[in-house]
Amino acid sequence: MPIPIEKLVVVGVGLIGASFALALKAAGGARRVVGVGRSRANLEQALAMGAIDDAMHDAARAVEGADFVLVATPVGAMRDVFAGIAPKLAPDAVVTDGGSTKQSVVAAARATLGDRTAQFVPAHPIAGSDTSGAAAATAALYRDREVIVTPLQENPPAAVARVRAAWQACGARVAEMAPGEHDAILAAVSHLPHLLSYALVHELAARGDATQLFAHAGTGLRDVTRLAASHPEMWRDVCLANRDALLGELRRYQDALARVGALLEQSDAAALERLFAAARAARRAWTDRNG
Amino acid sequence: MPIPIEKLVVVGVGLIGASFALALKAAGGARRVVGVGRSRANLEQALAMGAIDDAMHDAARAVEGADFVLVATPVGAMRDVFAGIAPKLAPDAVVTDGGSTKQSVVAAARATLGDRTAQFVPAHPIAGSDTSGAAAATAALYRDREVIVTPLQENPPAAVARVRAAWQACGARVAEMAPGEHDAILAAVSHLPHLLSYALVHELAARGDATQLFAHAGTGLRDVTRLAASHPEMWRDVCLANRDALLGELRRYQDALARVGALLEQSDAAALERLFAAARAARRAWTDRNG
Repeated sequence: MPIPIEKLVVVGVGLIGASFALALKAAGGARRVVGVGRSRANLEQALAMGAIDDAMHDAARAVEGADFVLVATPVGAMRDVFAGIAPKLAPDAVVTDGGSTKQSVVAAARATLGDRTAQFVPAHPIAGSDTSGAAAATAALYRDREVIVTPLQENPPAAVARVRAAWQACGARVAEMAPGEHDAILAAVSHLPHLLSYALVHELAARGDATQLFAHAGTGLRDVTRLAASHPEMWRDVCLANRDALLGELRRYQDALARVGALLEQSDAAALERLFAAARAARRAWTDRNG
Repeated sequence: MPIPIEKLVVVGVGLIGASFALALKAAGGARRVVGVGRSRANLEQALAMGAIDDAMHDAARAVEGADFVLVATPVGAMRDVFAGIAPKLAPDAVVTDGGSTKQSVVAAARATLGDRTAQFVPAHPIAGSDTSGAAAATAALYRDREVIVTPLQENPPAAVARVRAAWQACGARVAEMAPGEHDAILAAVSHLPHLLSYALVHELAARGDATQLFAHAGTGLRDVTRLAASHPEMWRDVCLANRDALLGELRRYQDALARVGALLEQSDAAALERLFAAARAARRAWTDRNG
C-alpha cells in the first residue's frame, strides 16, 4: 500500500511543495506533514493554510522518521539538501523532487546520497505558474497535469510505484522517461519560452518610453510575457542546470527568427502567410489534442 | 448628437467588425447595420447572431445612404475598399477603420478617397484575440479596452468626436496620437510578439518529434504561443504594412537574445538572476498599473 504516507517532509514549501502537501492531504494521502524552509513568514503561511503541520529550518532533523520526502527547492540548492539529509534518511524512506531539470538533479543525488541513492526517484510536475510561495499554493494545482518521473536504474519498483501513486493521488497523470530525454524536451517547450519571455520584458522595460509602451499593450503582450513573472532564482538555476540543451534551443530559435526576418525584409507575402498558417494549424492541432 | 447612427455599414464582418456592431446595437448606438463580406457563411452567421440586419457583397452599393462606415478588413485590403466606396459616400458620412497599422491605412485613404479624405478618421481598437470570424464576436469585446484614434489634420472635429463616441458607446477608452507614433508603439508591443509566437510554433512544429514535444508542454508554452493561433492573412498584412518598424523591433530583440545567450554561455548566474528579477519587477509594475 504505497499511500497514505505516515510522515511527509517537504523541503522547500513554495508553490510546488505546498501544493503537493495540500493535494495529498485533501486526498487522504498523508497523515502528517513537516515543512522545511528558510523563510519563517512563508512557513507560517503554510502552517496557517494547513499545508504543513510542523515547520522546521533543518532538513536533516526533519527527515528523521519520515517515510516520504519531497525536495522542492530551486534545483541549484538540491545538492546541499541531499547531502544534509543522507545520514538521517530511514532505509525505507522514499525521496523525490519537483525540479524542472532532471540530469543535474540526478548528478547531485548520486554525488551526495551514497547508499541511499536507490531511494531517490526523480520527478518533475509540469504545473508551474507565474506565482510563487506557499501563499499561491492550491490543492488543485496538479489536477489533470502531467508529472514526468525519470527513475534511476537502481530504484526498486516499489519506490517508483510509491512516487507515482503520490502524484496520482494529487490528480496528476504520470509519464516516465529517461532524465536526458526529459531535459531535451523541457528545454524546447518550457525553458526556452521562459528565456524568451524574460528577454522580451527586459528589452522593453529598459527603454526610456517603457511606461508608454506598456500602457498601450493589450492581452497579446500580456500572454507572451506571463512567464517573465516567474521566480528569478528558480529559473536562474534551471537555465544553468540545463544550459547546453537550452543554448541549443536558443540557437535554433535565433535561426528561425533570422528566417522570418528575411521573409519580412523581402516583403515575401506568400511565404509569411504560409508560415503563419502552418503555425496556426500546428497550434490548433496541439490544443485540440491536449484539451 | 454623434450617435445613434441611422445606417451603419461594416465592411469585413469578422471578430472586430461584428463585435463593433453587436456592442453598438447593445448600447442603442446603431439603428440598422449592413454587413459587407466575401464569405456567405460568415455573413449568415452575423445575420443569425443579430450583429447585422442585412448582408451584401458590394461595399459601394452598401454605403449609399450610410452615415457611418467601419472598414474592418485585413489592412492590405483597405485600399480597394476605400477606392470602391469613395464615389458613393454621402458628404456627411464618417468613415473609420479597425486596422492594426495606421500609416499604411492613412496612405491608402489619401490615395483613394479624394475629396472624401477628410471624412476618414483612422482608429485601432486594441482588442484582438486568437479567434476570428463573426462567430467569435461578442458585444463585450471592447469593454475597458483601449481604442487609439489617429486623426488626420483635415478631419473636422465633429467627425473625430463621432468616431470617439461610437467606440465609447462600445465600452472602450479612447486615446489619440499620430499614426507614426501608433505604429512605432504597436510594432514593439503587438506586432513583434505575434511574429515571435508564430516563429516559435513554426520552429517546434517542423521537427520530427513535434507531437511528443507538444504532448509534454504545459501552460507556459500555451501562453507564449497563443498569438500563433491568430489570423494568418490579417497578420501577414500587418507585418508588411509596418515592416520597417517591425524589422527594427526584431533586430532589437535579436540583440537582446544574443546578450542573454552570452550570459548563459558564460554561466553568469548573478547576471541572469538580475535580468530575470528586473523583468519580473517590470512586468509586475505594468500589470499592477494597468489591472
